[in-house]
Amino acid sequence: MGYQLHGGDIYHGRIALDFSVNVNPLGIPLGVQKVLRASVEHWNRYPDPECGELSRRLAEYHGTERERIVCGNGAADLIYRLISLKKPKQALLLSPTFSEYERALEAVGCQIRYFILRKERDYRVNVRELAGQLEEGEWLFLCNPNNPTGLAVPGGQVELLAGICQKKQGLLVVDECFCEFLEKPEKYTLAGRIPNYPGVVLLRAFTKSYAMAGLRLGYVICGDMALAGQLRRTGQPWSVSIPAQEAGAAALREKDYLAQARGLVRKEREWMGQKLGELGFRVFPSQVNYLLFQDEEGRYGNLGIRLREQGILIRDCGNFHGLEPAANSTGFRYYRTAIRTHEENKQLIETIRMHDIKHEEAEHEGTKRLPFGSVKDMKQRERNSAQ
Amino acid sequence: MGYQLHGGDIYHGRIALDFSVNVNPLGIPLGVQKVLRASVEHWNRYPDPECGELSRRLAEYHGTERERIVCGNGAADLIYRLISLKKPKQALLLSPTFSEYERALEAVGCQIRYFILRKERDYRVNVRELAGQLEEGEWLFLCNPNNPTGLAVPGGQVELLAGICQKKQGLLVVDECFCEFLEKPEKYTLAGRIPNYPGVVLLRAFTKSYAMAGLRLGYVICGDMALAGQLRRTGQPWSVSIPAQEAGAAALREKDYLAQARGLVRKEREWMGQKLGELGFRVFPSQVNYLLFQDEEGRYGNLGIRLREQGILIRDCGNFHGLEPAANSTGFRYYRTAIRTHEENKQLIETIRMHDIKHEEAEHEGTKRLPFGSVKDMKQRERNSAQ
Repeated sequence: MGYQLHGGDIYHGRIALDFSVNVNPLGIPLGVQKVLRASVEHWNRYPDPECGELSRRLAEYHGTERERIVCGNGAADLIYRLISLKKPKQALLLSPTFSEYERALEAVGCQIRYFILRKERDYRVNVRELAGQLEEGEWLFLCNPNNPTGLAVPGGQVELLAGICQKKQGLLVVDECFCEFLEKPEKYTLAGRIPNYPGVVLLRAFTKSYAMAGLRLGYVICGDMALAGQLRRTGQPWSVSIPAQEAGAAALREKDYLAQARGLVRKEREWMGQKLGELGFRVFPSQVNYLLFQDEEGRYGNLGIRLREQGILIRDCGNFHGLEPAANSTGFRYYRTAIRTHEENKQLIETIRMHDIKHEEAEHEGTKRLPFGSVKDMKQRERNSAQ
Repeated sequence: MGYQLHGGDIYHGRIALDFSVNVNPLGIPLGVQKVLRASVEHWNRYPDPECGELSRRLAEYHGTERERIVCGNGAADLIYRLISLKKPKQALLLSPTFSEYERALEAVGCQIRYFILRKERDYRVNVRELAGQLEEGEWLFLCNPNNPTGLAVPGGQVELLAGICQKKQGLLVVDECFCEFLEKPEKYTLAGRIPNYPGVVLLRAFTKSYAMAGLRLGYVICGDMALAGQLRRTGQPWSVSIPAQEAGAAALREKDYLAQARGLVRKEREWMGQKLGELGFRVFPSQVNYLLFQDEEGRYGNLGIRLREQGILIRDCGNFHGLEPAANSTGFRYYRTAIRTHEENKQLIETIRMHDIKHEEAEHEGTKRLPFGSVKDMKQRERNSAQ
């Protein structure tokens, strides 16, 4: 009802498997679950507006000062607070990228420009070119690794952008929400070097890394301590719930969880990429826990809707700027799938295989009846249900 | 660090008893706690942005349409969202009243006027006088029951205000967060009659009624369905966590919890009022789970700080508009205490008794040494620690 469609819409109809959101396939760490269950009765109190304990642990984790850290009700909360606080006049966004920056910027009347990532370059960010585009006072949102591509810009190149943003008196917002899924996050994040960059804000979340999307917990690390202070005072004092604060503090005590997730994701991403390729999709390179792919041969119709009918969600990328079906000459759709456990991934691949029109046609040649009606019928049905 | 002081600051130092926040003394209902513990592992998903299940139950509970209801990350979240969405130019606030309206209004540059409630009338709201003050297009915030007084305006009189606000094309925001503690909430709330009042927004929360402050869950019921739709789309899509949504839905299934709380609160409020009176305080009348009282004889110094040193928090009302120590000729302080269980209330009364200067002087007449130093020393110490 009114929201732009994101992933994770599991609340309408029966969904057995959700590949549309990119949370850690290992689920909430067991140690965190234990802490949560044990503390339920204390949630009658107000949360600590300062998120004192959690901020201290985060500062330690990132080797930075607690005063630079502001926690929020998910990373999205902080995007809105930062933008409503500073009301940027002009911003440059990657295309495609996560859509909430655009939505939050539009709410304050910001003029938005796009830096178009090119398909022939696998939607890689050319940092020099991007830097050259930046105008005076403009904000730059760099989703790193980018969503929905899963490709990351190395830390050294981000520093180059930071320097230019600073010179132009803009702000560089680096969304590192998927950073922990990279092989070597430390080679990409600016967290350790943040005091050098007063014009940089890093955005982080427990949502994806620790599979805590339902708890709502994100934070920023600010190059400018004064900005952190202002942001902390923007909006209501109690934006971060007690369960979120407790879960966050407990998650940082988990020693092997992230390493284990990285191992699983790397192995499964390779497997998934290969299988999707065999099914005729163009699969774009990714460094993290999701894959962007396109039905370049037009063999699967509206795969998102067809899978949903069988209780499986993937992310139709049609509302990512630059990935609209009409925006590419073929008219064929882009999808994003999360990488999950091997059993789940296998089930996805097998179900997708069933929807290959060639496969359907071959199977039903004898009966002259497609399981989903004819290709023409199917297209009609898609139009009806796409709303 | 920067926040205006509210109640509930239990995160700095050891606090054994917290009377500074007005949550239900029964704690989170056991049925709700059970639901929460059982669902922890599912909090890896994203929350339902529509809060579908919870909104349906709330609509049923209030006998209204689901489309009028918007849930938020606590009532405070909705205050900020509503104000940042509509950006009122001028607003009329009660003095004294809950301070977050003022803070949120100031953030959008709204001009604020105060309707002064008078001590000689026990801070009761004279509705005709209030209605007469309203200007064209002005918003009125009516905290009903009011915080920190605990007095409520009957529904019929609120309707009168609603009619006048509507005629003047303003908006009436009725904060009913403490409504469930009234003897007969149905005689005060406008929830059932809301379709008649497109110029009214009712603000509600589970925070206080169900002792769920740490979970963050509030909602509004809008007279104007279109406003509800706009508000739902203001800010991030996932502002209400899964634990909050599940706890809210479970709380509405609790049958006897609120009635039991009302009984306890009525009995204990009477007892507390009498005891505080005996200790020399002026106690103002209240209909809910907290009491406003003033140290009119100046017998207790800075009672808030003195109790805190012993691990007990009450709410110093010095930052409520109109209750600043300097705003009354005596210079003596106002406090607000929550009503809790009898054992806890007894402990508060006994501890306050120990801080009666007369009592101290009488007890230590032989030794010529006050336990907290002389009255003069004490005042000096207060000034130092009041920051």
